[in-house]
This record gives sequence, structure tokens and C-alpha cells, in this order.
Amino acid sequence: MSDIEFIQVEGGVTAPAGIRAAGVHAGFRKDPKRLDAALVVSDGPRTTACGMFTKNVFCAAPVQVDRELLATHTPRAALLNSGNANAATGEPGLAIARKSAQTAAQALGLADGEVLVASTGVIGVELPWTPFEKGIPMLVEKLSKDGGHDAACAIMTTDTHSKECAVRFTYDGNEYAVGGMVKGSGMIQPNMATMLAVVTTDMPVSIDAARVALKQAVDVSFNKVTVDSDTSTNDSVFFFSSGMGAPVANADEAASVLAEALRLVCENLARQIAADGEGATKLVTVYVRDANDEEDADRAARTIANSPLVKTAIAGHDCNWGRIAAALGRSGASFDQYGVDIDIMAMPVLRAGLPCGFDEDEALRRFEDDEIVIEVSLGTGGGASTRVWTCDLTHEYIHINADYRS
Amino acid sequence: MSDIEFIQVEGGVTAPAGIRAAGVHAGFRKDPKRLDAALVVSDGPRTTACGMFTKNVFCAAPVQVDRELLATHTPRAALLNSGNANAATGEPGLAIARKSAQTAAQALGLADGEVLVASTGVIGVELPWTPFEKGIPMLVEKLSKDGGHDAACAIMTTDTHSKECAVRFTYDGNEYAVGGMVKGSGMIQPNMATMLAVVTTDMPVSIDAARVALKQAVDVSFNKVTVDSDTSTNDSVFFFSSGMGAPVANADEAASVLAEALRLVCENLARQIAADGEGATKLVTVYVRDANDEEDADRAARTIANSPLVKTAIAGHDCNWGRIAAALGRSGASFDQYGVDIDIMAMPVLRAGLPCGFDEDEALRRFEDDEIVIEVSLGTGGGASTRVWTCDLTHEYIHINADYRS
Repeated sequence: MSDIEFIQVEGGVTAPAGIRAAGVHAGFRKDPKRLDAALVVSDGPRTTACGMFTKNVFCAAPVQVDRELLATHTPRAALLNSGNANAATGEPGLAIARKSAQTAAQALGLADGEVLVASTGVIGVELPWTPFEKGIPMLVEKLSKDGGHDAACAIMTTDTHSKECAVRFTYDGNEYAVGGMVKGSGMIQPNMATMLAVVTTDMPVSIDAARVALKQAVDVSFNKVTVDSDTSTNDSVFFFSSGMGAPVANADEAASVLAEALRLVCENLARQIAADGEGATKLVTVYVRDANDEEDADRAARTIANSPLVKTAIAGHDCNWGRIAAALGRSGASFDQYGVDIDIMAMPVLRAGLPCGFDEDEALRRFEDDEIVIEVSLGTGGGASTRVWTCDLTHEYIHINADYRS
Repeated sequence: MSDIEFIQVEGGVTAPAGIRAAGVHAGFRKDPKRLDAALVVSDGPRTTACGMFTKNVFCAAPVQVDRELLATHTPRAALLNSGNANAATGEPGLAIARKSAQTAAQALGLADGEVLVASTGVIGVELPWTPFEKGIPMLVEKLSKDGGHDAACAIMTTDTHSKECAVRFTYDGNEYAVGGMVKGSGMIQPNMATMLAVVTTDMPVSIDAARVALKQAVDVSFNKVTVDSDTSTNDSVFFFSSGMGAPVANADEAASVLAEALRLVCENLARQIAADGEGATKLVTVYVRDANDEEDADRAARTIANSPLVKTAIAGHDCNWGRIAAALGRSGASFDQYGVDIDIMAMPVLRAGLPCGFDEDEALRRFEDDEIVIEVSLGTGGGASTRVWTCDLTHEYIHINADYRS
């Protein structure tokens, strides 16, 4: 298994065999040029599906509906819309989420309960029915292997580009693929952040193994992205295996291979989200090691990544280790200040808690890169580590979130 | 005790009898017009002193020195400088902090260990000795009842104005005062946030009662201010009682009265800090009630107050309850989404988890106020509540923290 090569290829959610998708303008948005409804379908009888959802106490109607569905059914398709989040919409919101799922299932010739739903956009506004009435038949009509990109475009909100990724690999002499699409966590008034992702494969996998693999992948990818520390009412990740690839002899080993491929795809998509955070000019990777445990590593990395002072410093190309140290110190992670090392863009800036002089000109040169890497060793003797992705905090973020009124 | 009237009066740290102060330009800053060293002295033999300090793991040299002093001595004075934080300066930093305290003690005719020290400004740069050599005699020379304002000015960093407050009250037929000064938590590259405060009184109080009263006051004031969720290596609050007021017959009752006066002064100063946060155009008060416990109330209020989305919405005069709800939902506080009420500027915007229509024009009018008030009921049936202060997030914040290079 260790010698398996995962090759990144063109394409996204429809890269695996047995997965079709489509994206159309259904009318959730006013602009007729903007796609706003997507459908992803897993063909074939061996489909496996699972999902992960927001932990926000305020959760949107589609999330509530999906949780019910996944407890009792094996969904084979996902219907997604942008332009309206169907959140804070009470009973009418739940009713329309259920009705859209049922209508899509009928149009696809599936049983009731076999279509998951997701929404992103304005909250607190009733989700209109007309766009579904018009859009669902169009989506079903357009479903194809080439529809992945349209689907990825149809779920965009403040994303500046669609986000897709696919890898291919050969296992036990057979070729499989994992693909995915995601929309970012940027926010536009009066919306809230929403991360929607669909990841797919053709490798056969049991539902239990799929759940484990998805959780492992999401925990180190989407759950490690923080654009502005806000999470949404609608965050959803769907996983489908069409099971259309060759059967696997050793299910456990195959599941491990799939988990690794899923991780790669989700990590790639997560980095795309962070790099495309609202107003972002830089992807920022914060790597924390030598922590007592993973919780401490996560606390430390996340506090640095969420610090507005660190994020504005990076926007200003300022190699400001002091702000990183200050964030670290208040993170709640346990460490001794005289055990801490910090590197910025591979330049040592703090050793054993004390500043080491660095070349300011060289720092400015390295800050020209698109990705800024901050590495911290807590020096506790513990071996836990983590990586978190974020972006810089710029005037454009304020512009998008304060100056714009819908 | 309940009928005691606390009257806010002009003045600050020197309002109480037996407290003198001074502020001078000692040379920590290049600009000769900027005061950069302050001294506050409690005269008389009945002085009581205590302090509270940053919880940041990275803590500056003066904080380490003060903690040692307060464990073994009764300090009677505080020497403060701006322009250099004496943080991340290792052994040489500790040595110069001790030497400055000793030199000030000698100049004041006090014993070694009777002067506390505090610094704010650049970190990781050795604190120079020359300004102390020049400044300490000047400070001692200028000490007076009128020196409170100069002292308050001398500790400013990115503060746009000095911050002082004083109250007078009559207890058991005698008049007492509580005064204070503070510098804010704004940050300027390459500094880290620092909050320095000195609060004083002439009411006699035991050291044990003083510690309790100070902690109570700080917990609901300075510890409830969050400008950008960053805390500093240098945060320090000093308390001095000169004991020069009339002796009190009932020490416990007097301590309660003092605690209330301290709370009022610290709360006033805390609001001044939040209102003067970097780039701020609004003071924001977040009030959370009906939480299961105080921790939950604090989590909920702080997550709202630290949300960049909430803060940019306020900068944009956008009555965006959705962002408040999203922050609340991810805060970790326990509540049911259908139990939550939210009011913005006394306008109901969410009832039982669902949006209630509000007058957008009226909202815009109310957002003209200098203080934006957000009230949240978690509706748990629990009776815990808290108040947190912050400010809005504006272009000016980004400008100060990203665009400026020293």
C-alpha cells in the first residue's frame, strides 16, 4: 500500500466512474448568467453514501433533513442550491427542503429518501419553490460525466473561482478515482459562511469504512481551515461511492488506500478554500509541532491562524514573530515560553523563546510567495502536531463585509 | 451601603488623597514631545498594594519582577514606560527591570522592592538604561497631585487620547475617592497589545480585601474587553490604597463599598479602551443573559464580540442578526436554537430562533449611535449573564496593523 501513487488529474466530482453531475441557472439568483443549482448522482446499485455536518447550534433546514435521511436511507444523489441558505426558516423551511428532495428523487427514478439536499446563501428568507420546479428537470436532463465543473460553479457564493480536485490511483491492478468539489467559507452580507463539499469515488467501500475515512479526511482538511473563525449553519460534506470500480479482495486494506486518496483530495480542496478566503492575497499555513497532545497543537495553531494581528501583519508583508508569540501565549496550549521556536518562511525568528536576528530584506523577498508558512515548535517533549490553513486579513475583507450593502 | 452615591468627578489616578503622579519625556521614544515615563506614588505609612497580570505564557520581564515583589513586599510606587515593552528580552531584560525599580526606590527614599514596574511598546528590543537615568530624577522632581494627566499620557501607545476616571463617595460620614488611568489594547507594529492600568484609593483597606475587590472589579471590566481577541505579554493592573482617608469602623462593609467604587472606575476605563480600539468608530456592548452558567454566558458574548463578521457588519451599519446567530451557534455555549432571542439596539430581530421583521430605516438611524448594544437571551432557563465590550472592525484597523511599517 505504501507504494501507491496518487496522481492528481483534471476534473472534479465526476472523475470517478458512475458519477454524473450538472449545474444550471434555476432562478435562486436574479442574474441569469449565474448557475445556482447543482445535482450530483451516483449510478449503480452498489452506492455507498455518508455525510458530515456543521456543529453550529443554529443549523439550517437541509442539514436537519439530511441527518434524518442518512440515519435511515442510502442516498444516491445530492441536490444543492446557492443564493438562499434555507436557514432560520422554521417549519416552512423544513417542508420545502423535504419537498425538493422528494421531487428530485422522483425525477431521477429514485425512492423517496435517496436525495440529500444542501443550500447556501441568504439566511432568514423563505426558500422559493419555483426555481426547484424549473431547475430539477433541467438538472436531470443535463446530468453527465462532463457536468462536474458546472456543478462546482453552481454552488459558488463569494468564491472567486470554482474549486475542484481529482486523483487517480492503481490498487491491486485496478484503477480507481476520487474526486471532489467545494465552495468556500467566504461570506457576503447578509449571508453566513457556508462550506459545502461533495467528494466521490468509484472504489467499493462499506458504509462503516466510508464513515471512518470521511471523518479522518475532513478532520485534517476542511476542519483545519479557518478564514475568520466563523462557522456556518449549513456546512455539509457529502460522500458517495458509486462502487463501479473493480471489487476489492482485501476490504480493510482498500479502505486505507481510499482514506489516503480522500485525504489528499480534501486537503487540496481545503487549501483552495483558505487561499480564496474573502479578500485574501495569501494562503497561510500554520504548522505546530512538539505539543503535548493534538488538542494543544490545534489550539495553538488555530489561535495563531485566527489572530487578526497575525493576519494583518501577513497582509503587510511583516515578518512579525511577536504577534505569533502573543497568540501562542494566550492559546491555552501548555508550554514553557523558553522552549518555543518559531520559523517564518523557513527563517528562524525565535529560538528558545528569544528573538534571533533575521535578514529583513530576505524576509520581504520571501513574503512575495503566494503561501506563507509559519512553523512553531512548542518544545514540550510531546510529539503531537497539526496543520491549519487560513489567509491574510486585508482591506478587501472589510470592503466585502462592511462596505457592501445588499 | 446600598444608598451610597458614587459621583464621577474630574481627574484620575491622583484623585484620592495621598497619591501623587508625574509623566515626563525620558527618551524611550524619539519624539521629544511625547511623554514616555510615568510614576505613581502612594504616600503615607498605611499603603496597601496589589496587582493582576497577563495570563499569556509569554510574559514580559517587568511582569516577572512584579510578581516576585508583590509576593514579598508592599510596593508604594509604580514606574511605567512606553516605547519599549521589555518583552522577549531574556536575562538582560529582567536585570534592567530590577535596576529601574531599585533606582526609582532610592530616588523616592523607599526601600528596595517597594517600586513596581511596567513597560509597553516594541518587543524583542533591549530596554535602554539611559532614559531611566535621565527620567527617574525628573519624575521624582515633578511628582504632584496635578501629575495624573501627564502620567496617563505617558503610558499611551496607539491610544488616541488618555484614559482617566475618578469617583468620590461618602461612607460613614467620611469622603473617599477612587481614581484610575489606563492605556488601551490597541496594537501598533511591531508591538503587541498591552493594557496597563493603575487604580488608586485613599480608603483604608486590608491587603486581603484589596485583592478580592481588585479581582472582582477586573473580572467584570478589563477582562471583559476584547478588541481583537489578542492579549499581551505585558498586561498589568496595579492597585494602591494610600490609606490616607478616615479609618473605617466596619472593615468588611467598607471593603464592599470600595469594591463597588473600584468596579465603577474599572468599568468606565474598560469602556474607554474598547471605544478607542484601533480604528474603532463604535463602542460595542454585547450582553448575554439566561445562560446556564457564567462560563457559557462569557463564551457566547466573547465569540460574538470577537467575530470579524459581526464587527465588520457593525462598521457597515448593518443590523446583521445572522452573523450574531452564527457566532452564538459556534461559541460552545449550550442552548437550543429555538430558545434564542436577539435584540440589536433594542430592536427585536430574532425571537425563539426565528427572524422577526424589523424596520431597516429605523435600524440605520439607531446605528448612528456611538455605542451599539447587542442583547442575547439564550433562553436556557439558567440565570447567568455577562457583558463584554468591543469595537467595530474598520479599514483603519487594517491600515494601522498591515499598511504601516516602522
